[in-house]
Amino acid sequence: MGRRIKPAILKGTRDYLPEDAVRREFIIDRLKKIFRKYGFDPLETPSIELWDTLGGKYGEDAEILIYRFKDHGGRDVGLRYDLTVPLSRVIAMHQDIPKPFKRYQIAPVWRADSPQKGRYREFYQCDFDIVGSSSLMADAEILAIVYESLSSLGFEDFSIRINSRKIIRGLVEVSGIPIEREHETARIIDKLDKIGVTGVLNELESNGFKKESIKKIEKIITLKFESNVEAIEFAREFFKDSESGSAGVEELEQLLEFIDILGVPEGNVSVDLSLARGLDYYTGPIYEAVLKGVSLPSVSGGGRYDGLIKIFSGRDFPATGGSLGLERIYQGLIDLDLLPDSLKTHTHVLVTVFNKKFMKESASLARKLREEGLNVDLYLGKKNLRAQLGYANDRGIRFAIFYGPDEMQAGVVTLKDLKLETQKQVKINEVAEIIKEAIYGN
Amino acid sequence: MGRRIKPAILKGTRDYLPEDAVRREFIIDRLKKIFRKYGFDPLETPSIELWDTLGGKYGEDAEILIYRFKDHGGRDVGLRYDLTVPLSRVIAMHQDIPKPFKRYQIAPVWRADSPQKGRYREFYQCDFDIVGSSSLMADAEILAIVYESLSSLGFEDFSIRINSRKIIRGLVEVSGIPIEREHETARIIDKLDKIGVTGVLNELESNGFKKESIKKIEKIITLKFESNVEAIEFAREFFKDSESGSAGVEELEQLLEFIDILGVPEGNVSVDLSLARGLDYYTGPIYEAVLKGVSLPSVSGGGRYDGLIKIFSGRDFPATGGSLGLERIYQGLIDLDLLPDSLKTHTHVLVTVFNKKFMKESASLARKLREEGLNVDLYLGKKNLRAQLGYANDRGIRFAIFYGPDEMQAGVVTLKDLKLETQKQVKINEVAEIIKEAIYGN
Repeated sequence: MGRRIKPAILKGTRDYLPEDAVRREFIIDRLKKIFRKYGFDPLETPSIELWDTLGGKYGEDAEILIYRFKDHGGRDVGLRYDLTVPLSRVIAMHQDIPKPFKRYQIAPVWRADSPQKGRYREFYQCDFDIVGSSSLMADAEILAIVYESLSSLGFEDFSIRINSRKIIRGLVEVSGIPIEREHETARIIDKLDKIGVTGVLNELESNGFKKESIKKIEKIITLKFESNVEAIEFAREFFKDSESGSAGVEELEQLLEFIDILGVPEGNVSVDLSLARGLDYYTGPIYEAVLKGVSLPSVSGGGRYDGLIKIFSGRDFPATGGSLGLERIYQGLIDLDLLPDSLKTHTHVLVTVFNKKFMKESASLARKLREEGLNVDLYLGKKNLRAQLGYANDRGIRFAIFYGPDEMQAGVVTLKDLKLETQKQVKINEVAEIIKEAIYGN
Repeated sequence: MGRRIKPAILKGTRDYLPEDAVRREFIIDRLKKIFRKYGFDPLETPSIELWDTLGGKYGEDAEILIYRFKDHGGRDVGLRYDLTVPLSRVIAMHQDIPKPFKRYQIAPVWRADSPQKGRYREFYQCDFDIVGSSSLMADAEILAIVYESLSSLGFEDFSIRINSRKIIRGLVEVSGIPIEREHETARIIDKLDKIGVTGVLNELESNGFKKESIKKIEKIITLKFESNVEAIEFAREFFKDSESGSAGVEELEQLLEFIDILGVPEGNVSVDLSLARGLDYYTGPIYEAVLKGVSLPSVSGGGRYDGLIKIFSGRDFPATGGSLGLERIYQGLIDLDLLPDSLKTHTHVLVTVFNKKFMKESASLARKLREEGLNVDLYLGKKNLRAQLGYANDRGIRFAIFYGPDEMQAGVVTLKDLKLETQKQVKINEVAEIIKEAIYGN
């Protein structure tokens, strides 16, 4: 223990000091409340998965994307890359889980590639999936959760863009693209937000797609519609000769009706025929949610993936779900100034200590206030009252209590409200109520 | 995506299916509430730390205990082994954090060595520490948190064994053991619970400790006291020639007075002069909490470690803290049958679907009940009503609602209470209140 260790942290990872951590807890608690409201229960899976489980699904990219190492028994393992693959593994290993299975999991995932601005090597995903239902009402509930999650956090101006992978397959069909290039097509279209229309068209061309095919795709990715009805009308006509496309249109219509029943306002949902989602495993409705007025990637995304679990279980399990990105949501709340000022600490009040001789009296008072339901910090340092007040202020604690010899004699405390910058003497038995009133009453 | 992947999990790691996960959430929520009550705020640190941070503190054992790997930039990293070292690193990197700093962190840690019965490669620690206070009131608050955490979870018969590392140093002094063998002595005595008195004495002998020294240690580890007062009286006499020992006795006396002020019952605390704790970094009061009536290792442990942070910061920071083991607490709650039966799911009620044609009506009802504050699962599968009831039962959902054509006509629902095995027709507008009353009212 002799040598000094230079304190440092791995690039792409972060510490969250109390103010940030309190706010992250606030967001997570809100999300859990919504997930539970829709009948979801939690699932926990280990951070470390066998390489066979992780590697299979991402192909060549797996080596780049996943932290891989050997355990001390020589087993090939890695840190999970997402929460969907672990869910699929769990479904396969525990086939007796009652279905439909509605689960949420809020947990870190890891990406081993180089971190970029706004992208981290360790970050939280908040996933909610329904396994074992092929009903479009399941997809509708996923969208309702996205809507409620974002609006319960205070976001108003956001859009949930929806499409169906069947529409993308329809586009491949009507564009005369060989069906085996469907995933490739989807992955290129998925880059639209990043590289723009010209970028997508160039990439299609350089990948050898035919001129007529590219024309069709260009049409779909450049069109703008006034309303979802108009988008559906257009798509019905455009995809009328494609079985997949027509099925996709029908799916979207039904989905719009279902989310209306569940209370999702029309203004927060827009049919976007160019939405593709990068991952190969989607099979039905897909979505992405974007906040308006901020420059952030989508804060939520997901869709139906009826084939994925079969890779693990050998059995078909229809599944649909979504993921909310904790870090991006947090950034959005900060950028739009939607977090309450008081959300910096859980502590309601600091009980100061007049001087060392009065530690017992202050401790006894702290105990009383804790028993009365307050979160109470008792000052445990060595500084004077003025510095103790500074400490309360630095931590964002709203109230401070002085309890010196004069107060003791009179059976009162001096209560200081650091927010309103007021102070008054109150009876010991009344102080807890006064603080609660101030915190919860308005 | 063609090949089938055999679903498996790394030995020593586990999945927590909903029933377990709901209960783990319950425990964590209780603990957070207590931590906050004492003025603690959360801190989050990354799972991956630089090897320099992790490796330095554990010496040769580090290679065996820690999952180590290289990131893609060739940096030497590992998964955190505990939450104390990351805290120390944070304190060193962010010296402007207001102090005393009271933080909690509830998060997984990893151990790479072979898993044994009841020991896992990935498990949760619930840590609470106070950095920047040398006051024994800080140690007292740590013990008060341990007491409140365990009792708020329903445990009654448990003992918080306390001692001081100064007593152990005193024992080294009065036994004529060279002071440089203090840590070695502590580590051997720490094995008492595992290998018994004879085991400890044998190990001391085979490690070349002198007969007279072993005799002194034997006395301390075999003595039983009727009360804490008696233990203190004995220790005062036994350690009267040792400066450290005497300081330790004084420390324990003061600590007992302080925890009494904070409301910790005497019956749950016992002075144990043989308690050593294995880690080298402790410097003052140390403790371990054990549940009675179950065969489990200690569910909580900790103590004062005034020197640790200096390794990272070059500056002295007094610190004290504790850790509660989530998995052991859970096991204790199970073994003592202390968990409420209803604690299996967050879902209050299942809205069944009469048949596919009535999905919209059931969805609309589910929405209404959600808006009225219930956690509602809407059945999304394809099975008949009888099977839907079985599904509610399997998930542990207490209520099920039938809403078929007859009910719709009459403006009622049929509400089935699966716990009381009753059913009745109730008006749609009254059903939420009836369910809330049943769940929260008794």
